[in-house]
Amino acid sequence: MNQPIILLHQVQLAENLGAVARAMGNFGLKQLRLIQPKCDPDDPKAIAMAAGNERVLESASLYQSLDHAVGDLELVFATTAAERELIKEYYTPRAAIPLMSGKKVGLLFGPERTGLSNEDLSVANHIITIPVNPDFSSLNIGQAVVIILYEWYQSQTDKDTWLHLGDTKPVSQKELQNFFKLLEAELDLVNFWRVPHKKEKMWQNIRAAFLRMQPTEQEIRTLYGAIQAIKK
Amino acid sequence: MNQPIILLHQVQLAENLGAVARAMGNFGLKQLRLIQPKCDPDDPKAIAMAAGNERVLESASLYQSLDHAVGDLELVFATTAAERELIKEYYTPRAAIPLMSGKKVGLLFGPERTGLSNEDLSVANHIITIPVNPDFSSLNIGQAVVIILYEWYQSQTDKDTWLHLGDTKPVSQKELQNFFKLLEAELDLVNFWRVPHKKEKMWQNIRAAFLRMQPTEQEIRTLYGAIQAIKK
Repeated sequence: MNQPIILLHQVQLAENLGAVARAMGNFGLKQLRLIQPKCDPDDPKAIAMAAGNERVLESASLYQSLDHAVGDLELVFATTAAERELIKEYYTPRAAIPLMSGKKVGLLFGPERTGLSNEDLSVANHIITIPVNPDFSSLNIGQAVVIILYEWYQSQTDKDTWLHLGDTKPVSQKELQNFFKLLEAELDLVNFWRVPHKKEKMWQNIRAAFLRMQPTEQEIRTLYGAIQAIKK
Repeated sequence: MNQPIILLHQVQLAENLGAVARAMGNFGLKQLRLIQPKCDPDDPKAIAMAAGNERVLESASLYQSLDHAVGDLELVFATTAAERELIKEYYTPRAAIPLMSGKKVGLLFGPERTGLSNEDLSVANHIITIPVNPDFSSLNIGQAVVIILYEWYQSQTDKDTWLHLGDTKPVSQKELQNFFKLLEAELDLVNFWRVPHKKEKMWQNIRAAFLRMQPTEQEIRTLYGAIQAIKK
């Protein structure tokens, strides 16, 4: 049984870090990754809020960048409170769960005050948005985690769904990032962006499209080959 | 639409009271009843944790006994972490929601440290138990409230998944076919397939990947431009 991995990007408050650890314990999750955390997993406030599940804090992995933190994952869901300009598929927690079956999944949560930036979101395949009252939509990060993990845990008692992949494997984020690097270099080389300030947004959208595709390893090799062939 | 009423019996910590108020705001609930509370709804810690939804704290009703607090309700669900000796029907949050339809419902939560006593439970029609990891089953009261209210709110909406498109439109099959024709012509031109008999399968797989992407018109224009740019 593959367990989702929780990724907290720039988590700010030790209390929230502890609440996330407690929620992970409630639903049997073990793997926590902290990207540029602004608080310390051995802060007494974190340990108090973990309410006995400090083990997940002790074993948390630290990362310097989001790209590294998602490198070995097959499917990344980012969480946002509101819709963004990026073209991504939005899922409720319940609708997202069946997609996770059999995959190495990361669930990415942003800093408490600001949430994830568009640049942060660009590493994700899809987005999870919890349906809430639009007039009061600010969910505490611990509560957002608990809701999504509750849905995941519920699904483990149900019958699972399967994605037919044949002999192929879904591409890892790292391989996809390598493909992005190559594609970006090619597009830079041919001055594709024309107006430099447009590049950031355009490049986010191109990556969003390929992430939505969820390509297999074979498909990425094919696309890579196609780019090389057209170039020559 | 009947909203459930939240009943907190002998709530101990102002922080938790505030967290419950915040969760109620997130899911649009207005009515809070406090039975023999051990903390004050205008405690600054409660107001801080309510994160802007202090109105529900200000308008909370106070009761001296559970019997009074449930007097006008039609259906009361009590929440417990574990099964008790009392012979009651146990429901997961999800299974409980359909029973609430059209009724004046109360959701009863116990003191943080001990939970509801058997005597407290005797006012309830049924029991809700949230499925959790049996080795670490202690859910924070704010988190228990948020999970049950999330389930209730979900039942009020039917939106599962959606694609955020902003100002763009999904590409039509016809436009996608035009893109495929162009791409195929380019790949033919550069002798991408090498072995002719492999083309059919490879080309099917490439098209499958782009179909899974469900590109927008804008994205297809971008990809088209990228191909042209790399070609030059």
